[in-house]
Amino acid sequence: MRKGMLIVISAPSGTGKSTICRKLLQKRRDLKYSVSCTTRQPRPGEKDRKHYFFLSEKEFKQRIHKNEFLEWAVVHDHYYGTPRHFIEGSLKDGWNILLAIDVQGAQSIHEKMPDSVLIFVTPPSLESLKERLAGRREAVDSAAKRLANSKGELSAAKNYDYLVVNDELEKAVSQIDAILTAESLRVERQPASDLAPA
Amino acid sequence: MRKGMLIVISAPSGTGKSTICRKLLQKRRDLKYSVSCTTRQPRPGEKDRKHYFFLSEKEFKQRIHKNEFLEWAVVHDHYYGTPRHFIEGSLKDGWNILLAIDVQGAQSIHEKMPDSVLIFVTPPSLESLKERLAGRREAVDSAAKRLANSKGELSAAKNYDYLVVNDELEKAVSQIDAILTAESLRVERQPASDLAPA
Repeated sequence: MRKGMLIVISAPSGTGKSTICRKLLQKRRDLKYSVSCTTRQPRPGEKDRKHYFFLSEKEFKQRIHKNEFLEWAVVHDHYYGTPRHFIEGSLKDGWNILLAIDVQGAQSIHEKMPDSVLIFVTPPSLESLKERLAGRREAVDSAAKRLANSKGELSAAKNYDYLVVNDELEKAVSQIDAILTAESLRVERQPASDLAPA
Repeated sequence: MRKGMLIVISAPSGTGKSTICRKLLQKRRDLKYSVSCTTRQPRPGEKDRKHYFFLSEKEFKQRIHKNEFLEWAVVHDHYYGTPRHFIEGSLKDGWNILLAIDVQGAQSIHEKMPDSVLIFVTPPSLESLKERLAGRREAVDSAAKRLANSKGELSAAKNYDYLVVNDELEKAVSQIDAILTAESLRVERQPASDLAPA
């Protein structure tokens, strides 16, 4: 059984990350989504167990204690964590796993799993990011905090493997699709037997 | 102007390398083919200046002397060389360049241009390679020499970036197409300005 790849996607808030992930999952049957845990409140339309596992702070801390997270962090004053068993088991079974996560989380995943593939998605410009965030109805201070954070996130792109600009959704999705195809063809991911056929 | 990428493709003889290259060039308008020089005789259907620059040994050696090759080598008792000026100029102008070359040449290109992309194309198995070579009408000793060489070439695949198995032509072409798309999205190929937008 060939081991799967862990695909880590980060994007400043408002870049269209969840739409991109949904479309990728429709497109590629070799891909499963890693649902993260969080203590933040669900946004309108977000479903428990589908978009996130929404946990109380108490539950979250118990899971930390039981070493159930591959990584966890506090972002925007809330806990976020990546469940370990789902990812490790699925990769072993040959699935490619899609993980949408902030830059802090992406870095710690990369340290723990150096063969993961890190993709950073940006909006065409910071101007357009402001517009998209303004279009989302949030308290002004929350939007300002997100935006400040986004500037820091953009400069973090240089620690990623790939940079995809989401100026056109279908194009961005097909570019990420191409990245997954290409990565699966990398020589270092081939079973040794394929490199020395009889 | 963003600099182009140099895409180096190697494949054991009979793997379908020239068909793959032709289809890639039809598919991607950002791609130009680097025509190599050789002292070997044209095979049926091969055209001077299109498939190779067919040179006499004397002409070839003069070009070596004038430093006109990025690399050159002797393979199957013939000289093969990669013209320097076409590649350097085209990359500077933003073109991606496709170079089909043996493993020896690929290694020396990679040493001189470490940001080149190395793709190794294999037939599904060595058995199928034997069949394809047998289908090509060549003197038996020449086919045997090629086959012996192919075994060495296959083990060289581990020095490449990507391994593509040509068990189905269209699939192999679209996989290489995906590799080119993905490579163009690699963070280290982005202009520095894109990583720190205003």
